[in-house]
Amino acid sequence: MKILKQGDIICLVSEEGKKWFVKLESKNFSTHKGIVNLGEIIGKRPGGFILTNTNNRLSYFLPSLEEIILHYIKRSTQIIYPKDAGYLMLKLGITQGMRVLEVGTGSGAMTLLLAYYVGDNGRVFTIEERKEFSKKAENLIKDFGLENRVCFIVKSIQDGINEKDFDAAILDLKEPEKYLETVVNCLSSGASFGVVVPTTNQVSAVLSVCENLPVFNLEVCEILFRKYKINPDRLRPNDVMVGHTAYIITGRKIERGM
Amino acid sequence: MKILKQGDIICLVSEEGKKWFVKLESKNFSTHKGIVNLGEIIGKRPGGFILTNTNNRLSYFLPSLEEIILHYIKRSTQIIYPKDAGYLMLKLGITQGMRVLEVGTGSGAMTLLLAYYVGDNGRVFTIEERKEFSKKAENLIKDFGLENRVCFIVKSIQDGINEKDFDAAILDLKEPEKYLETVVNCLSSGASFGVVVPTTNQVSAVLSVCENLPVFNLEVCEILFRKYKINPDRLRPNDVMVGHTAYIITGRKIERGM
Amino acid sequence: MKILKQGDIICLVSEEGKKWFVKLESKNFSTHKGIVNLGEIIGKRPGGFILTNTNNRLSYFLPSLEEIILHYIKRSTQIIYPKDAGYLMLKLGITQGMRVLEVGTGSGAMTLLLAYYVGDNGRVFTIEERKEFSKKAENLIKDFGLENRVCFIVKSIQDGINEKDFDAAILDLKEPEKYLETVVNCLSSGASFGVVVPTTNQVSAVLSVCENLPVFNLEVCEILFRKYKINPDRLRPNDVMVGHTAYIITGRKIERGM
Amino acid sequence: MKILKQGDIICLVSEEGKKWFVKLESKNFSTHKGIVNLGEIIGKRPGGFILTNTNNRLSYFLPSLEEIILHYIKRSTQIIYPKDAGYLMLKLGITQGMRVLEVGTGSGAMTLLLAYYVGDNGRVFTIEERKEFSKKAENLIKDFGLENRVCFIVKSIQDGINEKDFDAAILDLKEPEKYLETVVNCLSSGASFGVVVPTTNQVSAVLSVCENLPVFNLEVCEILFRKYKINPDRLRPNDVMVGHTAYIITGRKIERGM
Repeated sequence: MKILKQGDIICLVSEEGKKWFVKLESKNFSTHKGIVNLGEIIGKRPGGFILTNTNNRLSYFLPSLEEIILHYIKRSTQIIYPKDAGYLMLKLGITQGMRVLEVGTGSGAMTLLLAYYVGDNGRVFTIEERKEFSKKAENLIKDFGLENRVCFIVKSIQDGINEKDFDAAILDLKEPEKYLETVVNCLSSGASFGVVVPTTNQVSAVLSVCENLPVFNLEVCEILFRKYKINPDRLRPNDVMVGHTAYIITGRKIERGM
Repeated sequence: MKILKQGDIICLVSEEGKKWFVKLESKNFSTHKGIVNLGEIIGKRPGGFILTNTNNRLSYFLPSLEEIILHYIKRSTQIIYPKDAGYLMLKLGITQGMRVLEVGTGSGAMTLLLAYYVGDNGRVFTIEERKEFSKKAENLIKDFGLENRVCFIVKSIQDGINEKDFDAAILDLKEPEKYLETVVNCLSSGASFGVVVPTTNQVSAVLSVCENLPVFNLEVCEILFRKYKINPDRLRPNDVMVGHTAYIITGRKIERGM
Repeated sequence: MKILKQGDIICLVSEEGKKWFVKLESKNFSTHKGIVNLGEIIGKRPGGFILTNTNNRLSYFLPSLEEIILHYIKRSTQIIYPKDAGYLMLKLGITQGMRVLEVGTGSGAMTLLLAYYVGDNGRVFTIEERKEFSKKAENLIKDFGLENRVCFIVKSIQDGINEKDFDAAILDLKEPEKYLETVVNCLSSGASFGVVVPTTNQVSAVLSVCENLPVFNLEVCEILFRKYKINPDRLRPNDVMVGHTAYIITGRKIERGM
Repeated sequence: MKILKQGDIICLVSEEGKKWFVKLESKNFSTHKGIVNLGEIIGKRPGGFILTNTNNRLSYFLPSLEEIILHYIKRSTQIIYPKDAGYLMLKLGITQGMRVLEVGTGSGAMTLLLAYYVGDNGRVFTIEERKEFSKKAENLIKDFGLENRVCFIVKSIQDGINEKDFDAAILDLKEPEKYLETVVNCLSSGASFGVVVPTTNQVSAVLSVCENLPVFNLEVCEILFRKYKINPDRLRPNDVMVGHTAYIITGRKIERGM
């Protein structure tokens, strides 16, 4: 049974469903439904509610990974969507104890997921050449107390990768076709990699370089996600949906000679 | 760096991409590409290859969660698809240390995922009234050495649930609308639940009962997954795709009074 | 070779792609790109351009059926989308000379299509109980000079249908399950019908009544339409797409006794 | 009220829904449900039934355009699907009296639709370099008595097009990017064209050449079609669906200078 403690990232939600994501500290927090003293929530169990100074109820709980990605992480860059990220976790077989390489830290959304899933004995190495992105992602990981699981590396992938024998790798950067060979060279035999790209031209470029790399088991996919209106008597999809996020290319390293 | 050991579930793959999933033991294994002595693989690193008695090369590696679900688990019942399972993990926020309830063990595919993701300190309670399904799933979990994380309960959900304060719950059984209240009662405040159903009528039925339960943040979605042909010069989706697996309904428990 | 004449519905388009749909008359027409004298276009061939008083070029052409439906028809009610309407035309086999029944004139979008496709020797009977909708649709049909092909009937479908032996029928109204029998009774043997509904509950309701009607060859479908960005070097779908318009139920009347 | 006459293409359907498409003549026709004398149907109204020599009932009716395309036309080549063809008809604004160019007769499926929709006063010019395909398509058009509306041209599009001032054009051949300029030159100002291609590489190639052609209003789309099971109490999509048929590129010719 979880107890909310100082520093936790929590979600406040109004009765109309409006959400706010905030770090739990002893301070006032203002919403259009009034002001609450966050300190009152410390020590409480999630799922309760608090009254604002204008007598509105806000419920509070611990956000899921999906909510953190979609709503909490600052959209400084393209984030990866839960539908894609969840699939990648299974497809790459991310489990506890793994050493995972991420090329392109970006917003840190994927870094956070990887940090959760590799566990205390696993490790994520994430490379990003833009210092400010790396720093922001590092702060994000600290918000969730997972900094011991992640190694932030600020450099260009062009300068190579020092570590070896990764159990899995994810590439989420421009022109991944230029760096896939470098990444594959750092993988253990049999390890899986995933490449996330928005355009069909990039898919073609990545598949082309794969023809000369020791990889197999290639898959290219896209995932469409459609929400429905919450109405049992008039059930129907929402009028609008996300039309595209990314194509996902995955494969496995094989020993040369196969 | 992983070393393959006796009892590991491995995947053999031919040069044409045909896959076999098998438990690693000192015994012969027959394929249409010839016979291999599995014992030779024990102690090797994944990603290598072995020669059959007819001189064909088979590569071997450790299967991902996606491959285990789609290819290894016996299809004694409807399995949950990786696209759906991966999303549910994020949406329900399954992380290490959680106590998770599963109603409807079925093939054990979701049980296995949950066992992986809750880690050594977490626990999965999975209820199934058909003894043979429960037994099969238990053997599956043992194949992956995760039996300490899972509690198999053979009974009808109609007889109630003894445990309390689950951090998340998944319902994957017929007529989930009849048992959702029982499940919600066993959740911690703020905990998430997910219901997996194949038909729109079931979606409506579940949404209807939700109107009288202490739940909020309801979402209904479906996920479409489309593969592309691996051809950089003629990139196009496969001619055929899976048209439907399940609708996913998720929500959160809230304290009564909100 | 078409020549634009007074009364034609034309489309003006700016160099940025902004479109205006307007009836061709000798009068000024104002846009944010300046004013044009529409009279100057009369007698010209479509595909040319005209200068505004602020020296901006507007191209003019005759809109397609798709543009008329999506952009010209006033959205007084839900319109049918081109992706759905085009399929229905083929599925119901609408060809010249047919007598077609439409129940639910609505905006007149489908009425207009049917009027085009049945030709000079065909006839569309369209029933609508809301007088103002029927009148608006009638004006729409007159805009395109097809009024001789359409018979507008202002009454409730509850009061029955006098005509018989229709070659096809389309139902686009609330609670079509209540009136499908009436419609089927007015069809020729072997004639097709189509029902357009937004919700899954309505699909179930329509399929239920079909069980006791002399119909066969039932099909339920939905059509998803996704646009791509016009960029050859970065080809990818639009970020947002329409998630849902309607479910389409079609079938054929059969003689009782089959 | 239609009466079936010699030479009509009809559809026979068994009580289980199995369909046969056949030309109506005074001869026996064999099915696994027994033999019928087709001559008995001549003069009857569609929608009735006939008994086989083994006393099974077969219903007969006139197939829709959708059934003709999907089931009657010999699959000597890739056909265009109803979902795509119906949309193209509206998007290109095909109406009676139009002169339409088709480059790539192929199976004749699109030729047939165009012939139906342009009416007695319209005309379809269809170019195909493979003589046997052109001949087969010509026979198809004759089966439906529309040969006066279609001009079959056996030659390579590389040899140019003699006719001018088409109201619309459809390209359905390999490497359409090589011939789009030729086609656009034959269009009236303001006329629309559509290109049907299976791969993303072709979409990019076509969009690239468009950058130097007098065209505007470009659209690239794909259409997904999903059927549902006919079960009101357990409504759900079919397990399998078509994953891809074609990308559709459309645009309009504009006078040079715009």
